[in-house]
Amino acid sequence: MPRPVTLFTGQWADLTFDDVCAKAKSFGYDGVEIACWGDHFEVDKALSDDAYIRSRHDILEKHGLKVFAISNHLVGQAVCDRIDERHKSILPPYIWGDGKEDGVRTRAAEEMKNTARAASKLGVKVVPGFTGSSIWHYLAMFPPVSDDVIQAGYRDFADRWNPIIDVFDEVGVRFAHEVHPSEIAYDYWTTVAALDAIGHRPGFGLNYDPSHMVWQGFDYVGFLWDFKDRIYHVDCKDTKVRMNNGRNGRLSSHLPWADPRRGWDFISTGHGDTNWENIFRMLNHIGYAGPISIEWEDAGMDRLDGAPEALDFIRSLNALTPPTAAFDAAFAQS
Amino acid sequence: MPRPVTLFTGQWADLTFDDVCAKAKSFGYDGVEIACWGDHFEVDKALSDDAYIRSRHDILEKHGLKVFAISNHLVGQAVCDRIDERHKSILPPYIWGDGKEDGVRTRAAEEMKNTARAASKLGVKVVPGFTGSSIWHYLAMFPPVSDDVIQAGYRDFADRWNPIIDVFDEVGVRFAHEVHPSEIAYDYWTTVAALDAIGHRPGFGLNYDPSHMVWQGFDYVGFLWDFKDRIYHVDCKDTKVRMNNGRNGRLSSHLPWADPRRGWDFISTGHGDTNWENIFRMLNHIGYAGPISIEWEDAGMDRLDGAPEALDFIRSLNALTPPTAAFDAAFAQS
Amino acid sequence: MPRPVTLFTGQWADLTFDDVCAKAKSFGYDGVEIACWGDHFEVDKALSDDAYIRSRHDILEKHGLKVFAISNHLVGQAVCDRIDERHKSILPPYIWGDGKEDGVRTRAAEEMKNTARAASKLGVKVVPGFTGSSIWHYLAMFPPVSDDVIQAGYRDFADRWNPIIDVFDEVGVRFAHEVHPSEIAYDYWTTVAALDAIGHRPGFGLNYDPSHMVWQGFDYVGFLWDFKDRIYHVDCKDTKVRMNNGRNGRLSSHLPWADPRRGWDFISTGHGDTNWENIFRMLNHIGYAGPISIEWEDAGMDRLDGAPEALDFIRSLNALTPPTAAFDAAFAQS
Amino acid sequence: MPRPVTLFTGQWADLTFDDVCAKAKSFGYDGVEIACWGDHFEVDKALSDDAYIRSRHDILEKHGLKVFAISNHLVGQAVCDRIDERHKSILPPYIWGDGKEDGVRTRAAEEMKNTARAASKLGVKVVPGFTGSSIWHYLAMFPPVSDDVIQAGYRDFADRWNPIIDVFDEVGVRFAHEVHPSEIAYDYWTTVAALDAIGHRPGFGLNYDPSHMVWQGFDYVGFLWDFKDRIYHVDCKDTKVRMNNGRNGRLSSHLPWADPRRGWDFISTGHGDTNWENIFRMLNHIGYAGPISIEWEDAGMDRLDGAPEALDFIRSLNALTPPTAAFDAAFAQS
Amino acid sequence: MPRPVTLFTGQWADLTFDDVCAKAKSFGYDGVEIACWGDHFEVDKALSDDAYIRSRHDILEKHGLKVFAISNHLVGQAVCDRIDERHKSILPPYIWGDGKEDGVRTRAAEEMKNTARAASKLGVKVVPGFTGSSIWHYLAMFPPVSDDVIQAGYRDFADRWNPIIDVFDEVGVRFAHEVHPSEIAYDYWTTVAALDAIGHRPGFGLNYDPSHMVWQGFDYVGFLWDFKDRIYHVDCKDTKVRMNNGRNGRLSSHLPWADPRRGWDFISTGHGDTNWENIFRMLNHIGYAGPISIEWEDAGMDRLDGAPEALDFIRSLNALTPPTAAFDAAFAQS
Amino acid sequence: MPRPVTLFTGQWADLTFDDVCAKAKSFGYDGVEIACWGDHFEVDKALSDDAYIRSRHDILEKHGLKVFAISNHLVGQAVCDRIDERHKSILPPYIWGDGKEDGVRTRAAEEMKNTARAASKLGVKVVPGFTGSSIWHYLAMFPPVSDDVIQAGYRDFADRWNPIIDVFDEVGVRFAHEVHPSEIAYDYWTTVAALDAIGHRPGFGLNYDPSHMVWQGFDYVGFLWDFKDRIYHVDCKDTKVRMNNGRNGRLSSHLPWADPRRGWDFISTGHGDTNWENIFRMLNHIGYAGPISIEWEDAGMDRLDGAPEALDFIRSLNALTPPTAAFDAAFAQS
Repeated sequence: MPRPVTLFTGQWADLTFDDVCAKAKSFGYDGVEIACWGDHFEVDKALSDDAYIRSRHDILEKHGLKVFAISNHLVGQAVCDRIDERHKSILPPYIWGDGKEDGVRTRAAEEMKNTARAASKLGVKVVPGFTGSSIWHYLAMFPPVSDDVIQAGYRDFADRWNPIIDVFDEVGVRFAHEVHPSEIAYDYWTTVAALDAIGHRPGFGLNYDPSHMVWQGFDYVGFLWDFKDRIYHVDCKDTKVRMNNGRNGRLSSHLPWADPRRGWDFISTGHGDTNWENIFRMLNHIGYAGPISIEWEDAGMDRLDGAPEALDFIRSLNALTPPTAAFDAAFAQS
Repeated sequence: MPRPVTLFTGQWADLTFDDVCAKAKSFGYDGVEIACWGDHFEVDKALSDDAYIRSRHDILEKHGLKVFAISNHLVGQAVCDRIDERHKSILPPYIWGDGKEDGVRTRAAEEMKNTARAASKLGVKVVPGFTGSSIWHYLAMFPPVSDDVIQAGYRDFADRWNPIIDVFDEVGVRFAHEVHPSEIAYDYWTTVAALDAIGHRPGFGLNYDPSHMVWQGFDYVGFLWDFKDRIYHVDCKDTKVRMNNGRNGRLSSHLPWADPRRGWDFISTGHGDTNWENIFRMLNHIGYAGPISIEWEDAGMDRLDGAPEALDFIRSLNALTPPTAAFDAAFAQS
Repeated sequence: MPRPVTLFTGQWADLTFDDVCAKAKSFGYDGVEIACWGDHFEVDKALSDDAYIRSRHDILEKHGLKVFAISNHLVGQAVCDRIDERHKSILPPYIWGDGKEDGVRTRAAEEMKNTARAASKLGVKVVPGFTGSSIWHYLAMFPPVSDDVIQAGYRDFADRWNPIIDVFDEVGVRFAHEVHPSEIAYDYWTTVAALDAIGHRPGFGLNYDPSHMVWQGFDYVGFLWDFKDRIYHVDCKDTKVRMNNGRNGRLSSHLPWADPRRGWDFISTGHGDTNWENIFRMLNHIGYAGPISIEWEDAGMDRLDGAPEALDFIRSLNALTPPTAAFDAAFAQS
Repeated sequence: MPRPVTLFTGQWADLTFDDVCAKAKSFGYDGVEIACWGDHFEVDKALSDDAYIRSRHDILEKHGLKVFAISNHLVGQAVCDRIDERHKSILPPYIWGDGKEDGVRTRAAEEMKNTARAASKLGVKVVPGFTGSSIWHYLAMFPPVSDDVIQAGYRDFADRWNPIIDVFDEVGVRFAHEVHPSEIAYDYWTTVAALDAIGHRPGFGLNYDPSHMVWQGFDYVGFLWDFKDRIYHVDCKDTKVRMNNGRNGRLSSHLPWADPRRGWDFISTGHGDTNWENIFRMLNHIGYAGPISIEWEDAGMDRLDGAPEALDFIRSLNALTPPTAAFDAAFAQS
Repeated sequence: MPRPVTLFTGQWADLTFDDVCAKAKSFGYDGVEIACWGDHFEVDKALSDDAYIRSRHDILEKHGLKVFAISNHLVGQAVCDRIDERHKSILPPYIWGDGKEDGVRTRAAEEMKNTARAASKLGVKVVPGFTGSSIWHYLAMFPPVSDDVIQAGYRDFADRWNPIIDVFDEVGVRFAHEVHPSEIAYDYWTTVAALDAIGHRPGFGLNYDPSHMVWQGFDYVGFLWDFKDRIYHVDCKDTKVRMNNGRNGRLSSHLPWADPRRGWDFISTGHGDTNWENIFRMLNHIGYAGPISIEWEDAGMDRLDGAPEALDFIRSLNALTPPTAAFDAAFAQS
Repeated sequence: MPRPVTLFTGQWADLTFDDVCAKAKSFGYDGVEIACWGDHFEVDKALSDDAYIRSRHDILEKHGLKVFAISNHLVGQAVCDRIDERHKSILPPYIWGDGKEDGVRTRAAEEMKNTARAASKLGVKVVPGFTGSSIWHYLAMFPPVSDDVIQAGYRDFADRWNPIIDVFDEVGVRFAHEVHPSEIAYDYWTTVAALDAIGHRPGFGLNYDPSHMVWQGFDYVGFLWDFKDRIYHVDCKDTKVRMNNGRNGRLSSHLPWADPRRGWDFISTGHGDTNWENIFRMLNHIGYAGPISIEWEDAGMDRLDGAPEALDFIRSLNALTPPTAAFDAAFAQS
């Protein structure tokens, strides 16, 4: 399978785009999934300044890298979320503004439309990202929440994202929602509900990242089969569950990443509990032909060690190629 | 062990106190853990009107029931929580007032002090309940939350509850926090952190309810051993994990109770995954001598069937009595 | 749930219908699922002789039993099967005839049409049974079998059963195929394929019997959810997997029932690995309102002990009744 | 199966034989497995005084109880053991003597011969017991132990027990060694080795007690199959493994019975991890027709509660009776 | 251990023998296990034409390869099987003939005798292969099958294979039956029964291939220990079980290889669930000194990638060499 | 983490110190953990002869190796043990003397004091070793052992080791007890008890070797967290549990190393069940900065193959380095 392997630049936004591209190339990546934060890809500049688009291509070409997707998780998060101080730290000031919820959400939604337009200008066909959710914080179901309130949350999502996806459709780009806690779809059945809410329109698909599924305990390989027509992008991040001491819990106790008392943790791709070979064989089976992007997060390992190692690991699986003839065809006596 | 078995009245608050007592007696219970909602036990009346206290005792005596605890989960929840519409439905109007967060929290804190005073007037020594939490909704750690913010949440808890526990200490009553999602302590390590934050003062202990631990996957029996000096009350509720279809997830997809697509559900005591015999043997071992209260919740079973059945189940375990001599003492040839 | 509990008479065909009814009544059953073999229900007599139908009703009334289904597994088996000596022993002589495959299959198919007509005459709406399969014996995939051959097997099934189901439709009765090894549908995906092959016509549904699923390892509770509109009848038989010695295998080594070297075995309902409570809660959830039939098979236990014991076990689960109000509704302060 | 259920009196030796018989009868037992300690059965008196034998029968008859076995675990232990202070407390003074190892072992061996003779006089055919072991304490293999030393231990066992079994053979009684830590055979392969060492002579068989196997993790049901010709007696004791807290270990840390920090514990029969139904079905299959004896040990439960409860539990399993005809014989159309 | 590693040519029979040898050599194999189909090894030519034997040796020498076994699974399959269209495609026309069952079986049996003779002429000592089975298709035990019928199947096997093994004995070659679904021995207890049926004669042994055992769930490593004197050849093929989605079943739903809905699948050696290191350590322990042959089947991977990778994997395990002295011998203070 | 990786020379004591150093260097080790047996490090010479100390340094320098610990397991074993013939083979003659228990123990205790002095002279700060135990052989709790006897065993340990640790304190060296069967602390709770007994004095810490914990089933990673201030040295040895055949038991049946009937076995580091990555991440988290020593034991592999391979395996984990900034810090829009 000739799928390219890219590095997601989101966790490297402390570096300039030029620097992260230099590193990605030196590690051996084919391209980058560019984050819309730091100086990596600025949506406002991309729309207002054609030279900015050119500058991105120039840097990519200088390093011999390709791009297949730009990602805007941080702004997307604000579209449906109940807004608080946490959002201030992850939004550009022109989105945050005065920080009042309605305004932040509205500006975030406009920015997501602009992200589609900018993606189109850059020449990429997929924007992975987050949706936010007005009901995520009801997770514990206490104080009691009626199903009406939950259904209203899905409608709020559809109401806010349908106009955004209209723009995606107009410019020929697709949004790939990353199924993730804090989002409207964070597991199997919420994915079903979210796709139902938005009418299964093709402009809204999924960014597959198994790291958020592993610790929730559902079958992330079967997920690919069931949503095979909505897998628009793949992020490879890994998760390790560590619950052998009788004390660590599945919800991880508000503890920071890498704390050994957490019940699970993100970990360098290939070091965790994810069955990557089953995933790649399933990707072959459903005919996924898009990029494979490594989203590298591991609070216990140096990223300069981990990013190239993860690439080697994923390349070997990405190379798995189904044969053209069945092995038992050779038994025939013609 | 002569521990009494009580029925928690909280899920029966649609009935009058007299009616729920009649039912509890007919089921065979020794007493009730009285909820501070419905007409079961009204804190304001208890403090302002001595006849009200007498009326509660009269009803109990009429039915031959005892009381060892009054519970105020709903008001306690508002002490630390970020307040929203959900709280309005569970708070008395005089606590909710105009619904502004600071005022609600302050009035809730005062009500918890009054609950201690009312408990003392009624003659009970333990108040089970919830604390609320200003940091629970940060569970998913995205948008990113620094450890400073988490630590501030524990301090907020201590700042709000220390004055409440001062009143508990004054009147000789103890608060028993129920470890539970949505609360400051919801698993093992958050219990450690909450007890640290409040300085391990004896007035603040725990209401043990394994149903919230079973699905989080930590050892709820070892929990009794590790916190043995802080187990002030025991609630028997059960949980069933149902994740065999590869699609149900541990976080249960915002689905209503009893929906078979949830990854876990509350269930009639004895029908779930809780190892109750291990619990009762551990309670014997740590010398817990307080009441055993059945908190009955099961969205798939009629409570009139379930409450007496659960009592039979728990009584047989509660009857387990350690012998006075070791069995291998009989091998000695004196 | 007021679902009746019936005894399947198939394993009691060494007794007369009158005798098995007497026993079923003495055990406490509400009715019987009548087997179309032994003298229990003879299709040819039912069609040719109105008095025969009356005689069945007379016997049922004499014992105070009801009937909701007649079952014809043995003749159904011959519709699609490759015919061999085994079929001779389970078919009436007028179906077996000269034992040549085409004739046997054709006569068996006609008999299944007649079974529908007889069911209608008797006044029952469901006929549980088997389909047989022309491809089951290709299970091991060696010598190699191409997918064309498999697909032809599904078409053969549809070609033979569509005319049968036409008659079922005409007389207002539905066929309930029991998912079972040896049949066209024996697991989850073969059920999907069989329903696809026959066009999901409502006349062809399922007789749910988890005992054949437990040892195959797929989720038999989720199966109810996924095929909820096709569950027409429920048989309660149980299975125990016994593979702890490192030598017993999942395919059970051609060993007779009850041999402890088998990897699994049928066992009296409630003694096995089936999670019956999850099944009954799911039946409540999907609104199944038909009969619950106990199919009693256990080569290690006397049926006179087992059949009444299994009834007690199933009755207690069948009594589970969802409440009309949510338990957390009682938390509301109105 | 008409197998009688007996109570092993060993853990009740603080009571007189008359008292324990009265209790066993009141619980509902059919008989007793009499311990050769306390005043229950004294080997020296039995051999020297015919009236003593009569007195035992008189007491049994008075209470309507039967006897099928006398057990002498405590003296048997000293035959092969390295002798230390622990043995003093479990041996009659006339066996302990001056406590010097050689003499203790020799006197213990003679007492076991006498136990055979006494059993014969009493009219029982089986003596369950222990062998002791000169190599058990080498379990950890450090300081290093060569295989020569291990093999010498098995020879020591054969050398000491062959003359004992000669007497058993002479008087027509069989010894039933209980596979147990501290003994020459404590698991599957040591049982193989011990039977090899003693030449598989029929006078030396096994007392099956699964409680010592459950926590060692091998298949105690398959054990019955593999040693089916050497199962001479069955003791029903149960074990619970409790290792969920990440801290309890399989070797149980020298902690006393019932301490919750032990990795496993003996527990009232039916409360543990033993799959008793699989055991009883296997006993039926191998044709075991001897007594079923309940050896009741549970340091967390009163024996007066436990002994009758365990009897009810075991009786229901003991009643399992294989049918005379196969259930699928009823499918035949004769 | 100086065991050679060979490539089984059966799945490469679309290539000429010369071509497959060239590939095997380029991958690094020591030799080949030659299939008796395609042009790799033609039994009739081998017997009739001495130059043919020479030609095989010439090709092997040209590529520097050795041969230790020729395999004739396809013809062996027809010896006991019920013959149908599937066999036509895997048999040489001169064996198939008119396709009538008796004739096919007889000719297949003669060809297996000739295979022994041809092996002897080629100079190899082992012929791995299949036996076929007249009872395999009774797997589901419905329609009911009596134990008499099963026993007759084992006798049929003995009757047909004893004369074949007579020829093997005459020419000093041994047959190695591959335990495999569709065959007379497909798991542990059927292997016991088959060896019993054929009288444990040394000419009939086993070709060990764990891939058929892994998904059946019995202990394939213990299998080596128990049948250690009958392990005549080892094939390394791997299997992956994939049943996490609650829908895939152990019998794999008639689905083609590599379909992700199968419950298990063959997979490149080292990619599956087989614990190869435990196998190789056991092979060392039982002293197996024959060839290690890689039978490469994986419908999700290119054989040109897989065959050399599997060789590297197996070589590293094959190199495991037990030491001559115990590690704790170094603790001795001489 | 710049932790050095050393080879423990104990299992290479058949070689001279010079030879083992040459091998360790050729394998690539940074240094050695020197065993106090063979000619590797002789305590008596070290104290009596300054040239001996120099000779050790000379050999180390010649091979470019470092030393961080000397180990004296064998003599330490005799301090608390009940002495028997096994000790003779592992003690220097001047410690064994006449072999009488009291004398051996006293001389062993003096030798451990001297080992501290010798370590100080050599310039190392840690002495790993064993303590022996007077109560280990009571493991099976039969014949019965009272808790008084157990507690006396811990006091005996404290009485014998406190004077030894006094000398360790004087010379600025620490003792690192290896938690191990046969020793005073062999699992989690015995480690708690032993540290309690000796008053948690800093001179007595732990040599962490997970191979003895893996098969006992407690959480060896959580062990590091709980005893993080007492981890003074780390030995990397691995263990494989092999219990799939239903016959192997956890106690391993007195069988020699590498026998496939053992329930577990030591195995080359990286080949076993130990989760080494979790261990190294935990070592990073608790700030362990001492040496990582490979103790190589595998009775199924040549040590010349295993020792370098294990080094490669451990080096890659030892290289794991936590980053200085959190990965989600890059999401901040400053």
